[in-house]
Amino acid sequence: MQLRRVKILGTGKYLPGRIVTDEELDERLGVPPGWVHKATGVGVRHFAAEGETASQMGARAAEAALADAGLSFADIDCLVCTSGTKEQPLPSTAVFIQKAMGQGESGVPAFDIDSTCLSFLVGLDVMSYMVDAGRYRNVLLVATEIASAGLNWKDKESAALFGDGAAAVVIGPSGTDESSQIVHTSLHTYGKGAHYSEIPGGGTKYPPGQQNIPVKDPFLFHMDGQGIFRMASRLLPDFIAGLLKQSGTAMKDFGVVIPHQGSAMAMRLLRKKLGISESQFMNITPNHGNTIAASIPMGLHEAIRQQRIRRGERMLLIGTAAGLSLGGMVIDY
Amino acid sequence: MQLRRVKILGTGKYLPGRIVTDEELDERLGVPPGWVHKATGVGVRHFAAEGETASQMGARAAEAALADAGLSFADIDCLVCTSGTKEQPLPSTAVFIQKAMGQGESGVPAFDIDSTCLSFLVGLDVMSYMVDAGRYRNVLLVATEIASAGLNWKDKESAALFGDGAAAVVIGPSGTDESSQIVHTSLHTYGKGAHYSEIPGGGTKYPPGQQNIPVKDPFLFHMDGQGIFRMASRLLPDFIAGLLKQSGTAMKDFGVVIPHQGSAMAMRLLRKKLGISESQFMNITPNHGNTIAASIPMGLHEAIRQQRIRRGERMLLIGTAAGLSLGGMVIDY
Repeated sequence: MQLRRVKILGTGKYLPGRIVTDEELDERLGVPPGWVHKATGVGVRHFAAEGETASQMGARAAEAALADAGLSFADIDCLVCTSGTKEQPLPSTAVFIQKAMGQGESGVPAFDIDSTCLSFLVGLDVMSYMVDAGRYRNVLLVATEIASAGLNWKDKESAALFGDGAAAVVIGPSGTDESSQIVHTSLHTYGKGAHYSEIPGGGTKYPPGQQNIPVKDPFLFHMDGQGIFRMASRLLPDFIAGLLKQSGTAMKDFGVVIPHQGSAMAMRLLRKKLGISESQFMNITPNHGNTIAASIPMGLHEAIRQQRIRRGERMLLIGTAAGLSLGGMVIDY
Repeated sequence: MQLRRVKILGTGKYLPGRIVTDEELDERLGVPPGWVHKATGVGVRHFAAEGETASQMGARAAEAALADAGLSFADIDCLVCTSGTKEQPLPSTAVFIQKAMGQGESGVPAFDIDSTCLSFLVGLDVMSYMVDAGRYRNVLLVATEIASAGLNWKDKESAALFGDGAAAVVIGPSGTDESSQIVHTSLHTYGKGAHYSEIPGGGTKYPPGQQNIPVKDPFLFHMDGQGIFRMASRLLPDFIAGLLKQSGTAMKDFGVVIPHQGSAMAMRLLRKKLGISESQFMNITPNHGNTIAASIPMGLHEAIRQQRIRRGERMLLIGTAAGLSLGGMVIDY
């Protein structure tokens, strides 16, 4: 175990206004009615409005999290953006979130941590050590994603699955009389699977201005669902067994399990393979879709809001990410 | 002070093979002979060869750092890419570095930390807390940049300044009988200056496929040198005064000061404004250019290699980054 006396002080969520239904997507993708819902398990997902930026969305979620924590921006010592996509290639998105919150002259440190869909989990893990050591008191973590900017509409399965949105979490030190703490985290990365889930072009490898990029649709999202599934299925059981053992926990001990929200099939398999009961399993896919790194903190926000988890209860955050990475975190909320 | 019992175990550097001289750039930019050298202070910078990727470059620097530390990849518990640019928009560059090192099945956690030109300083700061707490023993930090992929050749000043390259640093716990430690870090971010230095397009705000992006040359690097200079000049004196006070250090105490390598003018002003003596000041601009986030760890590598700093001596890492961020770190090497 690697106990950290760190507490989740508040959470917030923002969904952009444009609601995209399965019916609309069935038509757009040219598939029979019902196909999108069956393939993805998503009922509605939200898309950012034209001109709406990830930092604006993140700022709204961050303000909601601050209000939930009963804090103001002046109480925040560090702002970390934990998104899997960037608003601009340069500078970091955290800077734009700080600015969108009207805090561009605050001087509050702002930077990004990126582990694709696990960015929030990794950011929470890393920053909890700074809070535990007293370096920063309150840290604001923001995951904000406009997945719709990179969807490949010729790849029906991935195009139907993703949604836009933002979530934010404020952490701070746990009081001496409080049971809130981070119990254990495990993160494994296997670069062998780096190309199973990717946007090949737009970085320094294939800059947007380059002629003759040797990849089809280089600037759009590519997903080899079968490849990910095979690799994740092989690795997950041992990964979970290790995480449970190291944290001295059994799966039944968790009040709620908050997974990264993948496809309906991926979610079903994860749940069954890991022996998670239906009542423990936090499934927000039907009304959010897969919102990349915002997915886990949105699930966390909803679990708290819906009282699926109460103070003092133990919970598990779990997911896979492009990389391929596997991550899990045991938290006493 | 925020002491961390963390030691720099080894450093490495990689410069790609293509050497670009000032004479070549004078001609390419259509300026009189000598203009590039006078404006930037750079003699030669290196550009990545065609097809050479940031992760390949980073892997070479990482291997050199491991060899310098007398370690192998099996000793590494976490790999963090601390670049200001990404190889692909998704997934994180650390994954590709792990793969390029032939360690794609290692499972070693790999993710990115991005604070533009200060990414290495921030990554070192953040990860030192995980090492100090015993969560990870040895951490490999890699900054690898292909600045040449985003240069705007119509903007002579910035096009002449940047170079490509990679640097890597291995950190681990400091022994009980060793004086090596991280003494203090300070990081301030002012999002007000977010647009002074940026690549506007290529992220979710202006995706590469979007028509009618309302910015000229959206996928290239834009720099308002005057804007940065004014803002940094106003903020730096108080920033440094605070850092020195909090770390109980005077400028004369540093064996070496390793700045982010900006233009000749920026470097000169930084040195004079902060009262850094010429003999303390690590200037590698003439044969490297500004290599974005690889700049500070390259300076660190060269300071150690050239014996400008010895074990037990105190040094200062210092710089500004797009954001605008100001960062400084006091280290007992």
